[in-house]
Amino acid sequence: MLKKFDVVVIGGSAGGITAALTAKAAYPHKSVALVRREQRVLVPCGIPYVLASLESVDQNLIPDAMLTQAGVELIVGTVLDVDTSAHNLTLDSGEEVGYEKLILATGSVPVVPDIAGIDKDGVLYVKKDYQYLTMTRERLLSAAKIVIIGGGFIGVEVADELLRAGKDVTILEKNDWLLPTALDKEFGTHVADILTSRGARVLTGVDVEAVIGDDRAAGVRLAGGQEIPADAVVVSVGYRPNVDLAVKMNLQVHPRFGIVVDEYMRTSTQDVFAVGDCTAKRSFLTGDYSPLMLASTAAHQGRIAGMNLFGIRTVKEFIGSVSAFSTEVGGVAFASVGLGEDRARSIGMEYLVGRAESADKHPGKLPGAMKQTVKLIFARSSGVLVGAQLSGGQSVGEMVNELAVMVQKRMTVEEILALQFSTHPMLSASPIAYPVVNAALNALKAGK
Amino acid sequence: MLKKFDVVVIGGSAGGITAALTAKAAYPHKSVALVRREQRVLVPCGIPYVLASLESVDQNLIPDAMLTQAGVELIVGTVLDVDTSAHNLTLDSGEEVGYEKLILATGSVPVVPDIAGIDKDGVLYVKKDYQYLTMTRERLLSAAKIVIIGGGFIGVEVADELLRAGKDVTILEKNDWLLPTALDKEFGTHVADILTSRGARVLTGVDVEAVIGDDRAAGVRLAGGQEIPADAVVVSVGYRPNVDLAVKMNLQVHPRFGIVVDEYMRTSTQDVFAVGDCTAKRSFLTGDYSPLMLASTAAHQGRIAGMNLFGIRTVKEFIGSVSAFSTEVGGVAFASVGLGEDRARSIGMEYLVGRAESADKHPGKLPGAMKQTVKLIFARSSGVLVGAQLSGGQSVGEMVNELAVMVQKRMTVEEILALQFSTHPMLSASPIAYPVVNAALNALKAGK
Repeated sequence: MLKKFDVVVIGGSAGGITAALTAKAAYPHKSVALVRREQRVLVPCGIPYVLASLESVDQNLIPDAMLTQAGVELIVGTVLDVDTSAHNLTLDSGEEVGYEKLILATGSVPVVPDIAGIDKDGVLYVKKDYQYLTMTRERLLSAAKIVIIGGGFIGVEVADELLRAGKDVTILEKNDWLLPTALDKEFGTHVADILTSRGARVLTGVDVEAVIGDDRAAGVRLAGGQEIPADAVVVSVGYRPNVDLAVKMNLQVHPRFGIVVDEYMRTSTQDVFAVGDCTAKRSFLTGDYSPLMLASTAAHQGRIAGMNLFGIRTVKEFIGSVSAFSTEVGGVAFASVGLGEDRARSIGMEYLVGRAESADKHPGKLPGAMKQTVKLIFARSSGVLVGAQLSGGQSVGEMVNELAVMVQKRMTVEEILALQFSTHPMLSASPIAYPVVNAALNALKAGK
Repeated sequence: MLKKFDVVVIGGSAGGITAALTAKAAYPHKSVALVRREQRVLVPCGIPYVLASLESVDQNLIPDAMLTQAGVELIVGTVLDVDTSAHNLTLDSGEEVGYEKLILATGSVPVVPDIAGIDKDGVLYVKKDYQYLTMTRERLLSAAKIVIIGGGFIGVEVADELLRAGKDVTILEKNDWLLPTALDKEFGTHVADILTSRGARVLTGVDVEAVIGDDRAAGVRLAGGQEIPADAVVVSVGYRPNVDLAVKMNLQVHPRFGIVVDEYMRTSTQDVFAVGDCTAKRSFLTGDYSPLMLASTAAHQGRIAGMNLFGIRTVKEFIGSVSAFSTEVGGVAFASVGLGEDRARSIGMEYLVGRAESADKHPGKLPGAMKQTVKLIFARSSGVLVGAQLSGGQSVGEMVNELAVMVQKRMTVEEILALQFSTHPMLSASPIAYPVVNAALNALKAGK
């Protein structure tokens, strides 16, 4: 029996959910279905936090009520194939589902590095899969010594949680500092210092040669021969777009970065859209493909697709990824948006840097005050803000969004200096020391 | 003996300090002096917090090193008179000081309401004065029952602190809800609920007829006859600009709102600028005078004056006050920017409201997660964001600045929906539920 919907979304994580909800909100009279493989869907960014901050994997589920209450039909099943001419898809149950508009939100899967012994038992990945995560959680919490291969944000967040759980943790990163995709060296070094001060061993600029042990992983060997014993090995060296279905459907796919989409998230095939980790995203500034995969970007793309399914309703084009990113390590928040200094240099941009520091309450003697650091990067020729890096307390999570607005509105250093901001003793830096303004002022001076 | 400086600032709080520091940064070769009455300067917004959150008044001082290290000369003394033709001022010491450019930052003083018995002993004000504040702190901390007249942000913050110190607190407000200048009714009611749940008595829509007692205040009597006994009475019914010197200098002064300045903070007299609470500020949206006095606005004006003393260097005009405001009550942050719903209605603006709620961490089961509420107000005809009101955890203090940027950049509901934001489990709402976006979406639906 063939069911037919106006809109079918494949994939149940941030991109798929947002696309389905937005489609239903934008076109209330259209029928919308979401097809997903999983019985239960994990909050994607919350996954590291099931290890210690949350009490169970079940505390990290996205409730289905969000979809069903909005009138989105939920179908659990694996899509085996899509006939884009007939506009219908075949599920593993044999059931067929028709669509007028299709949105792929098939996500990403962990990269398996080319290392000897990588298939040993005890080598674990951070996957968006309830069963697998439950198993991973049990194995990590029963291990004493854990090695993490990869110091990107998943690796760092897992390390942070395993320290919270009292584990002996070693984190290995092939670049010269942690979080190299999101943070400049001084911020990445600060992350490493925090992890080290909490008892972790942090090794940067290292290559892993092999997972050692018999059937079961007993540690890793670095290039050079040093062995690091461990009861479990976590691999977090990146994710690759899950494009299996897209390739089967004969969509245009970039071999490394994913499904090619336009600024309304349309693929190369009529009536087929794609959003989230499975799509190839370009940096809004450089035009290069960006490897950063973020649930917030997926949700943003989901909103754009959902709004523009049946014609361009709003000028809501995806301008490319601004890479607005935040994380927390040992209770210190780190965030970035746009270009880092390193990236600006590598593309040959002449830039100005402005820096400022302050307590995030004022006076700084107030209980709970933390140091806040802001670094702003401006294009030298135009004075336009192209990037920001920051660290501090919880409010950094929204301060980066304030800066993300400025980056997206292409504001100049002088426009930023002309803005009015709110400050409060319990909530922010003093009006005299507000670090966004003072970093802009510092850049202005540097430019003279 | 006549000392002469290129720039002289009168007043040592947020506006004066920022003006002096910016002048020195913008014109490094000019000599800058700051003249102030006080030996020691209080962090203005921190004053309520000396009652319980800080251990002493001394923990709430602005260090002079900030000025002296930047090369600003500090002169302690009271300015008796200014001769604007001769470009010099006379101090109470008899000393004369010459200037090329003068900046007035003389601040504000508490309004003394016209109530019988207001001059009794035990009636206290919240003043920016070290000696007076030290006395006030001692008297309040030795009192058991305290009545606060006025439920603006000073009254509410003092109430919050006195509750922390274990006092029996009653707060009286003549409007129908607390914080009426900054918050709409539902947010003001939320503030009252928090204070009430912590043991305070909150009475709104009431008029105070008299302070009762013999020489010493023993409570207040409301219109209608109800008496509320108290050991101390705090009066916080607003502040008026301190324009005594400006009037003496024959500057143009608005009788209620203060010194009249243009968009570069120039007064009606050549070479004389004014910034902060002592100036008359218009709302950037309505053009009406705005009664809100904020250190952040003062600092903003100080930067503009400091940059443009010797000619217009940058297009950094003061566009009027956007009234970006934040506070905290019982650990819950409240904030607003631009027009509230009430204000929009009163000026006859047709508007759209969008609302959204979320936890400020995700999943919401993470320790320390708090509810975040966002209300956005858009002009109906243009779709431009004209105001926002919010409540939640500490990050609301920066979320309001993100919204302040959008208000100042006159962004529309569709532009806001097209923005990319960062989210993180430990720092912010989920990407699906990010309340700034969802409130915009909610407004878009309301407009259809």
